[in-house]
Amino acid sequence: MELLEKRILADGKVLPGGILKVDGFLNHQIDTGLLYEMALELHRLFGGEGVNKILTIEASGIAIAAMTGYVFSCPLVFAKKSKTSNISSSLYSAEVESFTHGNVNTVVVSREYLRPTDRVLIVDDFLATGAALVGLKALCDQAGATVVGAGIAIEKVFQGGGDALRAQGVRVESLAKIAEMSDDSLRFC
Amino acid sequence: MELLEKRILADGKVLPGGILKVDGFLNHQIDTGLLYEMALELHRLFGGEGVNKILTIEASGIAIAAMTGYVFSCPLVFAKKSKTSNISSSLYSAEVESFTHGNVNTVVVSREYLRPTDRVLIVDDFLATGAALVGLKALCDQAGATVVGAGIAIEKVFQGGGDALRAQGVRVESLAKIAEMSDDSLRFC
Repeated sequence: MELLEKRILADGKVLPGGILKVDGFLNHQIDTGLLYEMALELHRLFGGEGVNKILTIEASGIAIAAMTGYVFSCPLVFAKKSKTSNISSSLYSAEVESFTHGNVNTVVVSREYLRPTDRVLIVDDFLATGAALVGLKALCDQAGATVVGAGIAIEKVFQGGGDALRAQGVRVESLAKIAEMSDDSLRFC
Repeated sequence: MELLEKRILADGKVLPGGILKVDGFLNHQIDTGLLYEMALELHRLFGGEGVNKILTIEASGIAIAAMTGYVFSCPLVFAKKSKTSNISSSLYSAEVESFTHGNVNTVVVSREYLRPTDRVLIVDDFLATGAALVGLKALCDQAGATVVGAGIAIEKVFQGGGDALRAQGVRVESLAKIAEMSDDSLRFC
């Protein structure tokens, strides 16, 4: 998606350690007009798939997922980071390792809000190692819900998570795909 | 706002300890159509105030704030819960006590994204003791930004946070105001 790629080149910052900082328009301050354009693009890609639920993970995925839900006319569910490892029987749960924060979170969704009849589009701002997507897919699998695919704003292709999921048959569509990043530059696929 | 009040009566659950559970449509699973109607109502209330930034706090405020930013055609900034008490000089920070979780979080916003020229509408899903609003207002005060007001989905008026802020001159508009809650019922103002 050219609009997003241009914005990354204009306002993104490449930091040491494979970090792309897009705090100015995607995950701290958020450009809501860009958000809407990204949601429209996800609808162009997945609009024919009978999606009836958007699933994301707190916190930075919520904004794009909310706008995507609005464009798809369906609800959004966000998986919550659990404060406790003592998971209630009313919840589905999965472990998710955070690339950015270097820790492992247990994420949960209430069983009420993921159903076997659901056709779920997973949405997130970033895809790197794929840990968040694997966790969100595990929640859907526990519920017996169908994962229609994953719609991602920015995929760091060189970290391999997206292609690992594609190899498992998950349809992963990323609006900007970064092939490589060096200390002060990046290249799209 | 009648639409929201009706939804609370239909799908909200009053739990012991003054908890109103609206997980089914506002802060776990989110009705994105309702989100849009709430954003329109906030625009009706604050649309003439020259708002150029929406400020909220992660995580459950992000969805309504994102939609509000879209309707106001302005960016959203969400304050992040800090993983560390060692705050960088590039951040504004404030302490926020969580009524729901019974702990205190340090919340931060990058100095880049709150400016003295900003006219800020603070948006959140809930207003109870007002701790989150006080913290978000403190961030704006540190930046020298103008707080135009606060737009809230559900205010639990009996917890006093909203009126304390109004007494300080903050314009607080809540789309549903709950006067009292007992074990299995609630009454709106």
